[in-house]
Amino acid sequence: MSALPRITVWNEFRHENESEEIRAVYPDGIHNAIAAGLRKHGLEVQTAWLDQPEHGLTDEVLANTDVLVWWGHKVHHEVDWEVVNRVHKRIVEGGMGLVALHSGHMSRIFMKLMGTTCDLKWREADDRERLWVVDPTHPIAAGLPECIVLEAEEMYGEHFDVPAPDELIFVSWFTGGEVFRSGATWKRGLGRIFYFRPGHESYPTYYNDDIIHVIANGCKWAAPNGLGSVVRGNIKVGPEVARLQSA
Amino acid sequence: MSALPRITVWNEFRHENESEEIRAVYPDGIHNAIAAGLRKHGLEVQTAWLDQPEHGLTDEVLANTDVLVWWGHKVHHEVDWEVVNRVHKRIVEGGMGLVALHSGHMSRIFMKLMGTTCDLKWREADDRERLWVVDPTHPIAAGLPECIVLEAEEMYGEHFDVPAPDELIFVSWFTGGEVFRSGATWKRGLGRIFYFRPGHESYPTYYNDDIIHVIANGCKWAAPNGLGSVVRGNIKVGPEVARLQSA
Amino acid sequence: MSALPRITVWNEFRHENESEEIRAVYPDGIHNAIAAGLRKHGLEVQTAWLDQPEHGLTDEVLANTDVLVWWGHKVHHEVDWEVVNRVHKRIVEGGMGLVALHSGHMSRIFMKLMGTTCDLKWREADDRERLWVVDPTHPIAAGLPECIVLEAEEMYGEHFDVPAPDELIFVSWFTGGEVFRSGATWKRGLGRIFYFRPGHESYPTYYNDDIIHVIANGCKWAAPNGLGSVVRGNIKVGPEVARLQSA
Amino acid sequence: MSALPRITVWNEFRHENESEEIRAVYPDGIHNAIAAGLRKHGLEVQTAWLDQPEHGLTDEVLANTDVLVWWGHKVHHEVDWEVVNRVHKRIVEGGMGLVALHSGHMSRIFMKLMGTTCDLKWREADDRERLWVVDPTHPIAAGLPECIVLEAEEMYGEHFDVPAPDELIFVSWFTGGEVFRSGATWKRGLGRIFYFRPGHESYPTYYNDDIIHVIANGCKWAAPNGLGSVVRGNIKVGPEVARLQSA
Repeated sequence: MSALPRITVWNEFRHENESEEIRAVYPDGIHNAIAAGLRKHGLEVQTAWLDQPEHGLTDEVLANTDVLVWWGHKVHHEVDWEVVNRVHKRIVEGGMGLVALHSGHMSRIFMKLMGTTCDLKWREADDRERLWVVDPTHPIAAGLPECIVLEAEEMYGEHFDVPAPDELIFVSWFTGGEVFRSGATWKRGLGRIFYFRPGHESYPTYYNDDIIHVIANGCKWAAPNGLGSVVRGNIKVGPEVARLQSA
Repeated sequence: MSALPRITVWNEFRHENESEEIRAVYPDGIHNAIAAGLRKHGLEVQTAWLDQPEHGLTDEVLANTDVLVWWGHKVHHEVDWEVVNRVHKRIVEGGMGLVALHSGHMSRIFMKLMGTTCDLKWREADDRERLWVVDPTHPIAAGLPECIVLEAEEMYGEHFDVPAPDELIFVSWFTGGEVFRSGATWKRGLGRIFYFRPGHESYPTYYNDDIIHVIANGCKWAAPNGLGSVVRGNIKVGPEVARLQSA
Repeated sequence: MSALPRITVWNEFRHENESEEIRAVYPDGIHNAIAAGLRKHGLEVQTAWLDQPEHGLTDEVLANTDVLVWWGHKVHHEVDWEVVNRVHKRIVEGGMGLVALHSGHMSRIFMKLMGTTCDLKWREADDRERLWVVDPTHPIAAGLPECIVLEAEEMYGEHFDVPAPDELIFVSWFTGGEVFRSGATWKRGLGRIFYFRPGHESYPTYYNDDIIHVIANGCKWAAPNGLGSVVRGNIKVGPEVARLQSA
Repeated sequence: MSALPRITVWNEFRHENESEEIRAVYPDGIHNAIAAGLRKHGLEVQTAWLDQPEHGLTDEVLANTDVLVWWGHKVHHEVDWEVVNRVHKRIVEGGMGLVALHSGHMSRIFMKLMGTTCDLKWREADDRERLWVVDPTHPIAAGLPECIVLEAEEMYGEHFDVPAPDELIFVSWFTGGEVFRSGATWKRGLGRIFYFRPGHESYPTYYNDDIIHVIANGCKWAAPNGLGSVVRGNIKVGPEVARLQSA
């Protein structure tokens, strides 16, 4: 593990290419907006996107990634299962972290890690969102105000069909009357996963300093930290028996 | 939901057909040994196995199953993904419970629900196993002694690569020096899952009254219980807005 | 354990005696409103209150109580520590359940069980409250709609200083912009605890059918269920050694 | 928060003064053995003990302590409640970490944080202990082997009456046949707590490199990390109302 985690920000990068309205918000793509923000927090960041060969997630890229940040939305089904399985293996067996953003809740990699439908309620109606910190001790909440306000965002509402999080950090309030568990963590194998709700493509959410602060904290938290040894498989002789045999 | 949950015990049913040694232990198959035990606890039980059409798990069978008990070992890969996905949907979206036994930890359905490798250490050496209750308040531990002893069993050892359980109920001690989280629960969508370690095919474990008691408790716990309503998808008008509009 | 849990509803019963306004809402006291509601769900219910000898919580009363429902607010400090310790022992060592309501979050018994300040934000301003179910599989959510609406209530807001719940069942939305983890469970020793937020004395909340439904579900969930045996203290001879000695 | 957490190791320091046998193991006291080990991990460490004024835990000492390591055993009842309450407040409201060792499970401060009896089984019979890592992703397990072996230790067995841990990191195996959840974490208010089982006064456990490694990891994990803001109490105007008023 390097002193500072090495981040790869992955983006579907279709909305920005297909819609002038979205391009106006993120002229260089959502990935570059997030990457620029994370670099201000001192992180080493590269980017990758769907239409690159192997979606930009070759073995080599993954081997040099401590935490993968994932933004996808409209074409989750275009992500090859081979790449999904490679990313899954790198997380679960290799300890790479994953920060899944917004509609990444229905990405193949997130769903495969969760084992549920990951479905939820949603509405595009310029709701105001208030993200309240419910676990102020968590490193992902370090240095943040008690409430982050986004003047307009897509609404996500409960029931959010994910396994009960290991840790619940943020809960969102929306103008229209809904609530949402909008920042939560899970561990899968050797990897750590952080899901963070905000960031619909039509809003300038990833230019918000607090939002970037959360994602940067999430990357630092999800990075592997010198994992202990893991032995599995057929152990023909137990340690107590081996001890007797060697005595 | 019926007053008493309707159980389907599923078995791979290959060891018993292919090996005289195993058949001597379970002449009618593991499924029938478990089913007979559960019936003594008043449960309504049917059985199904791999080599039936659709592995015996048709839509109709699943629609009439509150809890599915799963025993599989050597040919997990022969279980059709179509059936796995059907069972998964019935659990996550329909609320059916799952009790996964022993080597069912690497069944396709359990792995799909967990999102990890579900791998572990193992050894066939007639270890004595002591299953200690670490959560005496749990319904699955109701009526049991503090420790269940199995004179000989296959050893399973940590690290067991599953998500941190929602509830940890049993921890096993083995003669050879290992420990194992041998009884644990998770929720996935509307369904409840209980994993219980004991039951290697070469040992008469499923004739042990305490072991059957645990499985019966697990079935009662995993049964759906009049689930609340769940609404997902596009909610075009939030309840607070609807309220203003109707005022 | 009786087939149906035996409930004792405890009330501070001061607001109703001292304020005409509150008496107008609960002429027979909050305890009797709750008790009447729970009886409609088939529960066996008695009541007790602060100004009775031993606060109505004698050894005999507790010995015949499966679940204690607690409503207190303005004079938590008048509850004798001797009674608090007796109730604590009955929960932790005897397996009695506790359903703590509303401002019971700062009762001595709840704070002693939690180990934290149990502090929170609050406001009396007739906020509308929406309680969303975030765990539809939980027995406490059985048979409920996805959202319970209370037209006017006191607001409670995060950060709520309690240990991370074992299970989070309800999250509240308030008109003023706050959220709150308003229904949650914890286990302590052999006892189960359910905290449920609603019920300020100046609102008719305990006449709401859904609210009573939740409390009734909570009582059923918190009741002891045939606990396994628990052995503690000095075990001079381990089971493995005893086995060798007797061989 | 300083870059490296400032540790105070607290010891009852009576066994070493009263028993020649124990003094032979820890001639400078258990606290100095632990402190020396932690300093090798680069931590800034001071010590304190029971018979100092205010048990060595003055306001000033606590204000300059990021993590308190606690070893106590035979005279838990001699620790003044005033000091216990001061430490509790510094943890829950100030974010100081606590690493409770061995028989510290029944110290007043640990019991007050847990809310349970914290009781367990025990035996002094030179059992061999194997501590298995069950969460290799946890920072407290970083850099450790999968199993730490102590040739002789006091046995602690289940049921251990503590709230279900937020995270379970180690499970112990003992020669005599018992298991124990021997390394676990909880959060209370703004503070983080790590309980770690080994270290009976008659064994040289705190000279074991792996054991010190775990305690050093525990101190780093339990240190406060730039906590977010926490607002509690009467919020007379909600943020949504304030927004309307200022518009």
